[in-house]
Amino acid sequence: MSRIQEIYPSGRVSLREVGLRDGLQLVKKIPSTDAKQRWVREEYAAGVRHFEVGSFLPAKTFPQFVDVRDVVATVASLSGAHGIALALNERGVNEALESGVGEIASVISATEEHSQANAHRSRESAIVNLKRLCEMRDATSHKPLVNAAISMALGCSITGAVDPAEVLRLVDKCLEAGVDFVGIADTVGYAGPKQVAELTRAAVKLAGSKPICIHLHDTRGMGIANAAAALDEGARILDGSLGGLGGCPFAPGATGNVVFEDLVFLCESKGFATGIDLEKLIMVRRILREEMPNEQLYGGLARAGLPGGSAAKAA
Amino acid sequence: MSRIQEIYPSGRVSLREVGLRDGLQLVKKIPSTDAKQRWVREEYAAGVRHFEVGSFLPAKTFPQFVDVRDVVATVASLSGAHGIALALNERGVNEALESGVGEIASVISATEEHSQANAHRSRESAIVNLKRLCEMRDATSHKPLVNAAISMALGCSITGAVDPAEVLRLVDKCLEAGVDFVGIADTVGYAGPKQVAELTRAAVKLAGSKPICIHLHDTRGMGIANAAAALDEGARILDGSLGGLGGCPFAPGATGNVVFEDLVFLCESKGFATGIDLEKLIMVRRILREEMPNEQLYGGLARAGLPGGSAAKAA
Repeated sequence: MSRIQEIYPSGRVSLREVGLRDGLQLVKKIPSTDAKQRWVREEYAAGVRHFEVGSFLPAKTFPQFVDVRDVVATVASLSGAHGIALALNERGVNEALESGVGEIASVISATEEHSQANAHRSRESAIVNLKRLCEMRDATSHKPLVNAAISMALGCSITGAVDPAEVLRLVDKCLEAGVDFVGIADTVGYAGPKQVAELTRAAVKLAGSKPICIHLHDTRGMGIANAAAALDEGARILDGSLGGLGGCPFAPGATGNVVFEDLVFLCESKGFATGIDLEKLIMVRRILREEMPNEQLYGGLARAGLPGGSAAKAA
Repeated sequence: MSRIQEIYPSGRVSLREVGLRDGLQLVKKIPSTDAKQRWVREEYAAGVRHFEVGSFLPAKTFPQFVDVRDVVATVASLSGAHGIALALNERGVNEALESGVGEIASVISATEEHSQANAHRSRESAIVNLKRLCEMRDATSHKPLVNAAISMALGCSITGAVDPAEVLRLVDKCLEAGVDFVGIADTVGYAGPKQVAELTRAAVKLAGSKPICIHLHDTRGMGIANAAAALDEGARILDGSLGGLGGCPFAPGATGNVVFEDLVFLCESKGFATGIDLEKLIMVRRILREEMPNEQLYGGLARAGLPGGSAAKAA
């Protein structure tokens, strides 16, 4: 069995907890390393297997990820758990490779305007970097997975609308560069389910035997509807964060990633077994509340309880 | 053109503001009559045309609806606006008929257990009442529309799961009783989009030329995904409340109806023109905040702004 098939089996849905990376991008108070490790261990006990744990970025600018190696090690210590870390330049990639993390994530902006403004490089140069990352991966013995996410793929904070043909061109370029799979990110939560369905369908077709990951933000309340649309069109890897932790730098006060526990409920209600115990998962929110008391947490399941569970008991 | 086709044209989506009825079911502070009337007028100016304005229920038990006639009159004064009021017994129906409201809404529980516990009558007796309501309607000159909503149709606070065949049997009974259309209500927000899609598809088929209304609660964060599924299966009348006002008596702390403004965004993103100006609609939340400062309001659009609108401007 290939490594990608082992980690992301095509016959089932894989839900990735990205709260430890994307969720911490904007937090006012950084959780302790110990809290991050408890967060991972408790979610693992609830059945979660995929964790994006941080970024290999300069600690001065991103102090929330200074302990990324410790969290990578925690995930590695849990049988069957898979760690993912972001790395955007050669130094970061080297550190990520040395850490032994199971997957290195890279990002490319869907629009030239956002690429220049946000990463100070062209998309072409991002693709060149991606090729280099894949070569570096090939030169290691443990060969972590590499995934490239197309940010702003469903709407851009600078240009507004994004041409799906451009996104698909970049998906193709990333696959050509040697990544194991590509992600499609609605970074600023602009999309509705029709748009998500159309882009997912085309990307899944283009990627062939390689999976497509869908990364959604709930900025405008469409997160779960968009996830449903992506599942309907064959996406089998989806990102979420516990309590919808995280914000949006382009929309002050907006919510973050799609709520992980609601995503679990959605998948189960659609007949996709996730292997995740929702009651146990919801309990993990306690760690977030204790460590980050000023962050707003979201989520319908946490508020209302499972159907026929606490709700039925209260009736 | 028939009256139902005039008020709910089959070629387009009709979104109904039910905040003035369902949204006020559990509020701690009742908005003034003047505030309710401003709420209607400002939403009308934003393009909303369908308003559920209250219930003809005993004022002692439901003081929030004591001014229902005044709000009915406000809607009636606006060209092309349509008012809906709930009436559950003969006295209420008589008052509703006298008020001149454009539509009388009735409710039947999907399960015998809930019907007995909540309305202290059998479902059979509810159908008999419905027939009587339709006869009373036929005896008037202005002939308001009559709609029957099947509550707990996608999950019951008492029995848990609900047999869709039972719901469809009741839909059929209601149509036989002479209603203009039937509503399907996920009263306690138990459903996911697959379940909503399946029941909507069957109900739309069964109802033939008569429309199906889908009434969703966002209790577990599935509201918008469920609305998307209902639209995909041919439902063209959907209920929502501004800011998701309202709670759930069976799940303390839970959200209320699906958020009206997010529903508008969903429809527009799916290519269904609503005729509603979202920026203007969001402004109306001000009235709710002022009148009911202790009620939690929800909604992604209100938090984040329209894509390419305030969000893009902030970037």
